[in-house]
Amino acid sequence: MKKLVNEPKAVVRQMLEGFVALAPGQVLLDDETVVIRSDTPADPRQRKVSVISGGGSGHEPAHAGYVGAGMLDAAVAGDVFTSPSTDAVLAAIRAVSGPAGSLLVVKNYTGDRLNFGLAAELARAEGIPVEVVVVADDVALRDTVEPSRRRGIAGTVLVHKVAGAAAAAGLPLSDVLREAQAASAELGTMGVALGPCTVPAAGRPGFTLGDEEIELGLGIHGEQGVRRAQLQSADALVDTLLAAIVEDRRLATGARVALLVNGLGGTPPMELAIVTRRALAVLRERGLRVERAWSGTFLSALEMPGCSLSLLKVDDTLLTRLDAKTSAPAWGGEGRLAPERAPRPVTAAPSVSSAPAAKSPGMEKVHAAALAVASAFEASESRLTELDSAAGDGDLGISLSRGAAAIRALPESAWTNPSRALTSIGEALRRAIGGSSGPFYATALLRAARRLSEGPVDAPAWAEAFVLAVDAVANLGGAKPGDRTMLDALRPAADTFAQALKTGKSPAEAWAACVREAEQGADATARMQPRLGRASYLGSRALGVPDAGAAAVVVWVKALTPFIG
Amino acid sequence: MKKLVNEPKAVVRQMLEGFVALAPGQVLLDDETVVIRSDTPADPRQRKVSVISGGGSGHEPAHAGYVGAGMLDAAVAGDVFTSPSTDAVLAAIRAVSGPAGSLLVVKNYTGDRLNFGLAAELARAEGIPVEVVVVADDVALRDTVEPSRRRGIAGTVLVHKVAGAAAAAGLPLSDVLREAQAASAELGTMGVALGPCTVPAAGRPGFTLGDEEIELGLGIHGEQGVRRAQLQSADALVDTLLAAIVEDRRLATGARVALLVNGLGGTPPMELAIVTRRALAVLRERGLRVERAWSGTFLSALEMPGCSLSLLKVDDTLLTRLDAKTSAPAWGGEGRLAPERAPRPVTAAPSVSSAPAAKSPGMEKVHAAALAVASAFEASESRLTELDSAAGDGDLGISLSRGAAAIRALPESAWTNPSRALTSIGEALRRAIGGSSGPFYATALLRAARRLSEGPVDAPAWAEAFVLAVDAVANLGGAKPGDRTMLDALRPAADTFAQALKTGKSPAEAWAACVREAEQGADATARMQPRLGRASYLGSRALGVPDAGAAAVVVWVKALTPFIG
Repeated sequence: MKKLVNEPKAVVRQMLEGFVALAPGQVLLDDETVVIRSDTPADPRQRKVSVISGGGSGHEPAHAGYVGAGMLDAAVAGDVFTSPSTDAVLAAIRAVSGPAGSLLVVKNYTGDRLNFGLAAELARAEGIPVEVVVVADDVALRDTVEPSRRRGIAGTVLVHKVAGAAAAAGLPLSDVLREAQAASAELGTMGVALGPCTVPAAGRPGFTLGDEEIELGLGIHGEQGVRRAQLQSADALVDTLLAAIVEDRRLATGARVALLVNGLGGTPPMELAIVTRRALAVLRERGLRVERAWSGTFLSALEMPGCSLSLLKVDDTLLTRLDAKTSAPAWGGEGRLAPERAPRPVTAAPSVSSAPAAKSPGMEKVHAAALAVASAFEASESRLTELDSAAGDGDLGISLSRGAAAIRALPESAWTNPSRALTSIGEALRRAIGGSSGPFYATALLRAARRLSEGPVDAPAWAEAFVLAVDAVANLGGAKPGDRTMLDALRPAADTFAQALKTGKSPAEAWAACVREAEQGADATARMQPRLGRASYLGSRALGVPDAGAAAVVVWVKALTPFIG
Repeated sequence: MKKLVNEPKAVVRQMLEGFVALAPGQVLLDDETVVIRSDTPADPRQRKVSVISGGGSGHEPAHAGYVGAGMLDAAVAGDVFTSPSTDAVLAAIRAVSGPAGSLLVVKNYTGDRLNFGLAAELARAEGIPVEVVVVADDVALRDTVEPSRRRGIAGTVLVHKVAGAAAAAGLPLSDVLREAQAASAELGTMGVALGPCTVPAAGRPGFTLGDEEIELGLGIHGEQGVRRAQLQSADALVDTLLAAIVEDRRLATGARVALLVNGLGGTPPMELAIVTRRALAVLRERGLRVERAWSGTFLSALEMPGCSLSLLKVDDTLLTRLDAKTSAPAWGGEGRLAPERAPRPVTAAPSVSSAPAAKSPGMEKVHAAALAVASAFEASESRLTELDSAAGDGDLGISLSRGAAAIRALPESAWTNPSRALTSIGEALRRAIGGSSGPFYATALLRAARRLSEGPVDAPAWAEAFVLAVDAVANLGGAKPGDRTMLDALRPAADTFAQALKTGKSPAEAWAACVREAEQGADATARMQPRLGRASYLGSRALGVPDAGAAAVVVWVKALTPFIG
């Protein structure tokens, strides 16, 4: 049994301690596994009609999660999948009830009926008026079992809400009972399990299912369902579940309903969302008006994978109860739906101007330089492929060749000014090159372009743009010098070019120094262990071969030499 | 692969459609898997600093669940466990940002860094100021990897909250960035998996774990962790995880922290609550001040079973951000803790008086009658055991003998008046008898006692009490005539007694008729199929033997005959 638990016998108490520790509105009784509202008036005569529920544990967040103003006043927790004792229920009634009385919301299982029913009788003997509403919402066995014999499952949470809101509104016990019964009568639920769950004290799954089997219509403890079926798509399952409920509850076109999509404990939000989407679509196709809907884990069966769907036929009164505020931590919120046809979102137009600009002087040289780089990439494809295969995925050569083709394919408008040229090349590379080289070169070129757009484009401006581009590459990947990446060639190259210009060297001299630094930097990577990305898994196997990305830097800085100065 | 999904390729889009259908505050972009706030101003100039996050899908409710006022303005969803495209991120930035700029909250994975980083650069080229904060909160690999190389995992949700609240407070981009960075620097997370998860497109689990193995410190896609370990108790695991975080973050006594207990998708609330309980205890033992705490599924790994713990060292500024209101549907709420020593709950004293009352006349007869019933139960133990073994669990005989002993053991004070006598017998039976007979008899006796307490105790009062007791039994179990239960003897017996008295028969004559009806009713059950409880699984195998519960009714009504009249 793989569970985050300690002693199986202690799970219920420890769980409740964990729950109430994060619920300032709740208190756990010392002597019974009963959670009550911490703001329960000390004087029983000041207590309104109380609403109490509970049952076996293993259905969390039920029932303690529903204790709060406007929902339950107390939740009684039995052992896992075992009805709480009569004494525990009686303790709950005594702790939160007074002369105004109490309504017990009981799911239709024999143990719960007996223990809640007897506790109710004991409380009445003590002078506390108590009523019981038995919820039997499971439509799964509708063909074999009469309605009053159905099991009580996830839809019960909606009855908690209705009864709690009615009590909070100050209604007398008889009216709270009547509203709870009315809700219960209009409720249908059906579930599907994709697998079993394991009761901690038992230590092994309660039943088994084949790899392609599911259990349709099972109860919340994994009890027998309608039938075992073949695994099918979420949509097909939702159709089956809803068809059963709609037919059983005789929900005709125009009926107003609330929908509860409930995960059984081991189902992630992704799957519940996919189920919710289909459920809404099916209900709307059937002409039902979905007034409210919730999707989440509301009444679970330990870690069972699967879900249940509940439909509650609502009128204005019921909606008022469902909409009433509650502080219960696990209640699903307002349940409001988005409009069926969501408004088209407003997307801002790019704020950059795309008006044609006059061509800057010297752009022929920039264009020629770019084409020279393209040629150099093509010429080194096989060598870069070889280097990259030694300690990478081997695609750098072909990637840069693809980039070269993209540069050649740029329209004449790309070569209007240096900034636009670099932006265009960056955009072209990002679309043409997969893997990580595309984003790195694109980001570098865009950052450089931004610098060049800010003022006169002279040698110092180019140098600064180069440094900023290298900064961008470093930020993007998080690499540092010595990590055996393109940065080991880029960083010394860019810094040297900028520094040489500052110390009075000519652009041509400075670039020559830049090329030397790039070459030395690239060579040095042959002695470095990869520390980033996929290559890092190779460890020392990469030693002796320079990094392909660094070698590619040497290719293009050399190719640019004739155009500098 | 057992999942509630349709086409694996469609999971992300369908999931997002399901999410936004129940989130009126969100809109899904038509052309990208991007969810944005539906109240985003149409005019970019009216937009505050936007906060955007995202990443691969499979981490739900992250990231769409955090889109809302005061948290994220947009969430970008990639394929399952795959970074979203640069275009998708750019679309998100354009859709919610303006001149005030945008902060991208990125978890430290190469793909996310590249695509969010490049999109940021593209947006800057369009004139939108964009900053990036990279979250690297996973302390699992702290001994092998430097801090900036750590993975970004569940603690990121807290950075979303801090950044979103700072932006909502109207801060400029530089300040929102600074606060997000500050939070990120004070954050540590570590997780444990009890099992793998399955990427829908792959169709099988990403790794395997033995029945007794767990993976400590794994990433949110099931990547390598610190080590594989033996399954251990929840408490031991929590201790290990917290020790790693506290040590790594150098959290000293007195440090103020926020705690995030995060389920990985397949972990039910029960287990998270048990983990939460221990985490709070450990932190308090270590002298840390837990200022806020949340427990739930906040950033999952599909349906992986397991959890992570995050600690964020907080100061007043951070607390203000964590406490700020948000409409994001998946945010965990206020995170307030209950007082460490919860106030002792107030339990109402039973309101019924237990003062000694004067002994009513005729109580010797009542006492003698009860003892006669006790003797009759003892005398029929073997026959009732035999009957119950044919279609039940065989414990009725021994149960009623135990009840007999309990009746004999009642103190003299129990026999003060008829109502108190029946109440006392009911209480005694409920404590002495397990299974369902105890609650049934106890409830019946308590209900009868309540009637007898209301006025003069004459034969009609006893008859009415009997009928009400039978009603209580029917309500308690939900059985109907013909279901092969004790009710098939009780109902005709009680009704006949009351009816016979009304038609002028003497109590003795009426009781004789009552006994005949009970006998006939019990005999008739031999021809009935059980329809309730465990016996219902036997079907026709029970035919030919009367129901033991009904036969027991005959035992006690016959035993009472000498005392009636």
